[in-house]
Amino acid sequence: MSLIAVGTVAFDALETPFGKTDKIIGGSATYITLAASYFTKDVKLVAVVGDDFATSDITMLQEHGISTEGLQIKAGEKSFFWSGRYHNDMNSRDTLVTELNVLATFDPVIPESYQDCEFLMLGNLTPAVQKQVIQRLKRRPKLIMMDTMNFWMNTAWDELMDVINHVDVLSINDEEARQLSGEYSLRKAASKILTLGPKYLIIKKGEHGAYLFKKDQVFFAPALPLEEVFDPTGAGDTFAGGFIGYLASTGDISFDNMKRGIIYASALASFCVEKFGTERIVNLDKNELDSRVQEFVDLVQFEITMA
Amino acid sequence: MSLIAVGTVAFDALETPFGKTDKIIGGSATYITLAASYFTKDVKLVAVVGDDFATSDITMLQEHGISTEGLQIKAGEKSFFWSGRYHNDMNSRDTLVTELNVLATFDPVIPESYQDCEFLMLGNLTPAVQKQVIQRLKRRPKLIMMDTMNFWMNTAWDELMDVINHVDVLSINDEEARQLSGEYSLRKAASKILTLGPKYLIIKKGEHGAYLFKKDQVFFAPALPLEEVFDPTGAGDTFAGGFIGYLASTGDISFDNMKRGIIYASALASFCVEKFGTERIVNLDKNELDSRVQEFVDLVQFEITMA
Repeated sequence: MSLIAVGTVAFDALETPFGKTDKIIGGSATYITLAASYFTKDVKLVAVVGDDFATSDITMLQEHGISTEGLQIKAGEKSFFWSGRYHNDMNSRDTLVTELNVLATFDPVIPESYQDCEFLMLGNLTPAVQKQVIQRLKRRPKLIMMDTMNFWMNTAWDELMDVINHVDVLSINDEEARQLSGEYSLRKAASKILTLGPKYLIIKKGEHGAYLFKKDQVFFAPALPLEEVFDPTGAGDTFAGGFIGYLASTGDISFDNMKRGIIYASALASFCVEKFGTERIVNLDKNELDSRVQEFVDLVQFEITMA
Repeated sequence: MSLIAVGTVAFDALETPFGKTDKIIGGSATYITLAASYFTKDVKLVAVVGDDFATSDITMLQEHGISTEGLQIKAGEKSFFWSGRYHNDMNSRDTLVTELNVLATFDPVIPESYQDCEFLMLGNLTPAVQKQVIQRLKRRPKLIMMDTMNFWMNTAWDELMDVINHVDVLSINDEEARQLSGEYSLRKAASKILTLGPKYLIIKKGEHGAYLFKKDQVFFAPALPLEEVFDPTGAGDTFAGGFIGYLASTGDISFDNMKRGIIYASALASFCVEKFGTERIVNLDKNELDSRVQEFVDLVQFEITMA
C-alpha cells in the first residue's frame, strides 16, 4: 500500500569523534523514505528544498522508487541546513548551525496522485505543517504516524497537542516522553500519552532499544550491540521509516505485525549508525537486511515452557 | 544441584524519594541466597555477621531452605553496615555510611557438608576472600560465577584479575565493564573481558536490561518496564542469585539454558525493586513468579519467518 512521508530534506554537516563531513544530504524525510523504500516501492515524498540542492541527490531518491512529485524546489532559495557535533559518548550533541531557509515558509503541497495514500508518516516538522498535511488529504489514511521532538514541546505546545490528537502512532524518545507526560517512569508516561489521542506509542531509547506501547500491551526490542556507533544522525528517522514502510508493505496494522515492524525498523537503524549520514542505508541489499534481522532473532529469542 | 553463595550478610539503612528505613537486613549473599531459594532448596551460605544480628533474620533465611552452617557469628563484634541515599532518578546514589566491622577480618570457613557443591556464587567481596573460597573447596565446582564492583578495580586490581581468571561467569554492570576493559562499546568491552578468563560475561544495565555474552554469541533481556522503582538495592544480587539458582536447579549450563536463567533472574530482580530491601522477595509465590516470567515472554517475543 502507498505511503506518504512528509518532513525535511536538507543539508547536514556532521562532526563525530571519527571525523567530519561537508554538507551532505540529510533531513527526516530523506531517512524515512530511504528506509521505507526497502519494503515498499510506493513511497511518496512531501518536502521542500532550495535550488542549491544537488540533482544527483534527488535522482538517488528516485532510484529508490521514491516519488518526488511532492518535493518543491524553490528557485533562488537555500535548503534547510543543520550542523552538529557529537560528544565522545555519542549520546549527546551540540547544534552548531541551524538555518531554516526554505523551511521557514514551507507550505506542503499534496499532488493529486498522492491522494489515494493509505499510510502517512509525519516526520519531525512544525506541528502546524504536520496538521496541514492531514487536512489536505481528502481521505484519512488507514494509519497516521508522527514523529516530533522536545523543541516543539517548548515552543508550540497547543499546536503539538492538536496534531497528536489526530494520529494513530506517536514516535518520540525517552526524554521527550518524560517531558510530554511529566512522568519519569516510562510505563506511566506511556499510559498518559495514550490518553492524548494516539492508540500506539513508540518510545525510542537509542542504544537501549525501543518500546511499542498500546493500551494494556507492551513490546520491547533492544538495539543491536554494535562494535562502534559511527554517527547516530538519522537513526530515529530510519527507524520510523522502516517501521511504517514494513506496515505499508504488508497492509497489516495488527499489534503482532507492528512487533515485526519494530524489529525491521531496529535492523535498519542499526545499519544507519555504522557510517556518516545516509551512506550506509543508500545501498543495502536484501541479504544484509535479512541477516541483520536474524541477529535480532538470535539476540532476544529464548524458549521457556511454563509449568 | 547444590549451590554455595559467599558474600555479605549485613545491615542496610536506605533512603529513597519514597521513604527511608531503619537498619534492615541486606548484603549481597542475603539477596543471592533468597533469590536462588526460589529454584533450589540446596543453597549453602558462607558469610559473617556480628552478634548484633537478629536471630529472626537468620531464621528467615533458614525457612527459605538456606543452610547457615557457613554463617559465622562473631561474639562482641558488629555486622557490616551500609547506608545510602538514592537520587530522584534512582540511577545514582550517595553512600552515607560504610562500617566494615566483621568484614574487615572475614576469613571464610567452608563446612565439610558444603564440599560437594556443584555451583559456586562469589558475591561482591574483597577479591582475596573470593579467591580463598575457591581455594578452600577440595573439588572445583561445575560452574563458578562472580560479581564484583568498580571499588575493587580501583583498589585491588591484581587480586581482582587473579580471581576473574578462575571463574566461568563474570557479572558486572555497564560502567564496570567499561572500566575493566577500557572500551566504551559494550560489544568491544565484552570481547576483551572474555579474554581474561571467564567463558561467559553478564553485563547488567539496570533499567535497560542485561546482556549475556559468550565468544561469538550474545543474548539480551530487557528489564520489565515498571510503573515505579521503589528501591533498587539488591536488584543486581537478586539477579545473580536467580540466575545461578535456576542453573543449579536444572544442572544444565548450556547457553540456551543460561538464556532461560537470565529471564528468571530478570523476573526476580523486577520484584526486588518494588519494595524496600528484601521485603518483596521474602514472600513470593510460584504463581507470581510464573506470571512475571510470562510478562517477559510477552514483552520480547515476536514471530518472523525469514524468506
